[in-house]
Amino acid sequence: MSAEWLRWVRRGGPGERPGGSQEPGPRSPSPAPAPCYRRPRFLRGGGGGEESPRGRRAVRGTGPERPLPWGSGYAEVINAEKSEFNEDQATCCQISIRRRELGLEEDKEWLILCSTQFLTGYYWALFDGHGGPSAAVIASNYLHYCIKQKLEEVAGAITEARPPMHVSGRCVCDSDPQFVEEKHIRVEDMVVGALENAFQECDEVIGQEMEATGQTGGCTALAALYLQGKLYVANAGDSRAILVLKDTIVPMSCEFTPETERQRLQHLAFLFPKLLDGEFTRFEFPRRLKGDDVGQKVLYRDYFMEGWGYKLVEKADLKYPLVHGHGKQARLLGTLAVSRGLGDHQLKVIDTNIEVKPFLSCIPKVNVFDFALHDIKENDVLIMATDGLWDILCNKEVAHMARSFLAENRTDPHRFSELAKCLVRRARGKKIGHQWMLDDSREASYDDISVFVVPLHNRDEDC
Amino acid sequence: MSAEWLRWVRRGGPGERPGGSQEPGPRSPSPAPAPCYRRPRFLRGGGGGEESPRGRRAVRGTGPERPLPWGSGYAEVINAEKSEFNEDQATCCQISIRRRELGLEEDKEWLILCSTQFLTGYYWALFDGHGGPSAAVIASNYLHYCIKQKLEEVAGAITEARPPMHVSGRCVCDSDPQFVEEKHIRVEDMVVGALENAFQECDEVIGQEMEATGQTGGCTALAALYLQGKLYVANAGDSRAILVLKDTIVPMSCEFTPETERQRLQHLAFLFPKLLDGEFTRFEFPRRLKGDDVGQKVLYRDYFMEGWGYKLVEKADLKYPLVHGHGKQARLLGTLAVSRGLGDHQLKVIDTNIEVKPFLSCIPKVNVFDFALHDIKENDVLIMATDGLWDILCNKEVAHMARSFLAENRTDPHRFSELAKCLVRRARGKKIGHQWMLDDSREASYDDISVFVVPLHNRDEDC
Repeated sequence: MSAEWLRWVRRGGPGERPGGSQEPGPRSPSPAPAPCYRRPRFLRGGGGGEESPRGRRAVRGTGPERPLPWGSGYAEVINAEKSEFNEDQATCCQISIRRRELGLEEDKEWLILCSTQFLTGYYWALFDGHGGPSAAVIASNYLHYCIKQKLEEVAGAITEARPPMHVSGRCVCDSDPQFVEEKHIRVEDMVVGALENAFQECDEVIGQEMEATGQTGGCTALAALYLQGKLYVANAGDSRAILVLKDTIVPMSCEFTPETERQRLQHLAFLFPKLLDGEFTRFEFPRRLKGDDVGQKVLYRDYFMEGWGYKLVEKADLKYPLVHGHGKQARLLGTLAVSRGLGDHQLKVIDTNIEVKPFLSCIPKVNVFDFALHDIKENDVLIMATDGLWDILCNKEVAHMARSFLAENRTDPHRFSELAKCLVRRARGKKIGHQWMLDDSREASYDDISVFVVPLHNRDEDC
Repeated sequence: MSAEWLRWVRRGGPGERPGGSQEPGPRSPSPAPAPCYRRPRFLRGGGGGEESPRGRRAVRGTGPERPLPWGSGYAEVINAEKSEFNEDQATCCQISIRRRELGLEEDKEWLILCSTQFLTGYYWALFDGHGGPSAAVIASNYLHYCIKQKLEEVAGAITEARPPMHVSGRCVCDSDPQFVEEKHIRVEDMVVGALENAFQECDEVIGQEMEATGQTGGCTALAALYLQGKLYVANAGDSRAILVLKDTIVPMSCEFTPETERQRLQHLAFLFPKLLDGEFTRFEFPRRLKGDDVGQKVLYRDYFMEGWGYKLVEKADLKYPLVHGHGKQARLLGTLAVSRGLGDHQLKVIDTNIEVKPFLSCIPKVNVFDFALHDIKENDVLIMATDGLWDILCNKEVAHMARSFLAENRTDPHRFSELAKCLVRRARGKKIGHQWMLDDSREASYDDISVFVVPLHNRDEDC
């Protein structure tokens, strides 16, 4: 991020506009010591006030007083005292992209000089914090600014049929258009690149802000952007987005956890063994090894293996594994349950000097859905949720609930908000004694749960 | 590879058995300076002798005198003077896996002590050499030995319903079976692991042999193994295997080239900039940049980007790119057209001290096809071929040719061999003047072309 832009963001940017769903201005970059229950801006002023509903875990959702773009629904519930704070954060807004004047890119005044709106995007994002809410709060305030800035940097290219070799449009080499065509570089690749760069920039901002204010922690980030008839879903962490269409479910993200990224993590430890400081082993074993295993040949995997082999156990193999545990219990360096996300710049493995950050990636995987290639039906929706929902419900169950709820509530103007609440309630379960239980007697989610339900049918009405 | 085993291999192993299609014994590990046309062992003695058919590029194939397992067909043609030698090599054999006596694993004499055949596998492999035929020749002699050895190391596990935590079967921890089950470790994962380890070991053997004999070069490797009702296809390079079934085509490999592995290669250069020695840039641009581009913002990609962005061009960006060119012209460090394979331990970028090997990977990607889940029809085949075929024919064209040829030649006992020849002939084209041309007036392949056609229907008759 340019120092220029960071200063501008710190000064307060263009200021907040009327209407909660319009691109909210960045708030003070150093969040005040968070109250135990900090809610997304677009929920404030709604029923329920700011008090902590901890004990009863009331489900909060969007109401009629502050409609979100496209009539999207949102609902959330705080965790069951799993942590001191609510750790999920959400943002939803329009993103107005302005075309920069050529040659003025580095000028502080460009916002004033070229204020004409150029393109409008729509943005929904979820952030699941850990080690405190600060990183999630900063990310929810800034990621859309980073995206806006990165899109404006390529604004000249994204309305062309093909992006030009030079952003200026100048042709240094006669065959430049041919080179671009041969590489199959399309406008959507520029948007994907902008999202990838925006996540990286937001991560830098978080690092600077957390260091400056002495705060710690990190967060996952799941961001959906609608632009020029395409939906881009960028994900770094273990939240998830799916499209529930009439006849199919389209996964729009995949989870990045120590298990799904084992080979990348092990490979880094192979290349830079010092990162483990002699405290961890990079090998994976089905369980933590013990003294009795030494001298035996046990199942193992190294960085280059998708399959398994047998390894003669040495004493060094008794160290704690870089990636250990299974499913929700899987941990990176015994510390984190995710392998991608924003923040965590200061995080060290407890009682050691081992830094976790080198193993984390802030780069999202971006999936693109082109509406021009699909016939979108009235009840088709995008569902985004943090892991609190997906730990309890699989894609099929969520899709089934969405389809039947929307079919039964065709005329309710708040049906997408109601569906979001319904999904959150289902995963939260009911309190029976001291436990949160599902209807089928399984344990419910004790985690924060946040859900967006975005209707896709009338998406261009707002534009 | 254990020094023990290498010495054993060098001594000549168990010796060759009668019958060309039985596991051939390893030949002298240092191939005599290769004649210009060295043919796979199973083709020798067939019509045509050993002379170079260079000028007319005659198509050679398996005949009735030396049948391959399952009646597989094979055909090949030499390149059109693209290089001094034929650079493709092929192997086809049975692999007999013996169970090792426990505790005798390190004993030189185990082969004698436990000579009972335990499992039989079938093996087909293609190797496409570059920088000389030596690496391909060694790999065609040794990879199946490495695979055999790695499978024997896990022999105790691959006939169990689930592999045991300890290869000895001893249970150190009561819940060991549960840990293995929770990790979903199956028998096929052990075979995949054995293949991954075998490729790595074969690469080490090649490195040692080439250094000892002062030879250079490398090769791609595509190996198919049938074992216990499953087909495993391991690939490192740009050869390809597909299953042509009655109603579908199942790709069994993907190509590893500087283009398909751009992000891995760029990431390594980002982590270890010294590998480029100041001579290359790790950034990708649509074309090689020139002086006029400096100071402009041009399209680029870095290691973390699947999308594209614009980068302000500095002087350092004018260096030759780590990955450059498109399609068949794409090169790693301006040198190699593949990013995975065996050998190339000594390869340096011309006129520099830059080593290519750190960027190469010898690890295959293994795909598994379970015959129990499919109803295999009479004309269903596995087709494996080097890039010489796939540069000219796409999967659909090959599948169409296979289906129509086999339907029209139901009774010919050599139809799989004939189909292989037919595919090779199609990609080689005809010589018109000084050029090799296809029927549709496009240029034909000037490369070596090697093709296996493996019938799948009566696969267990040989067992």
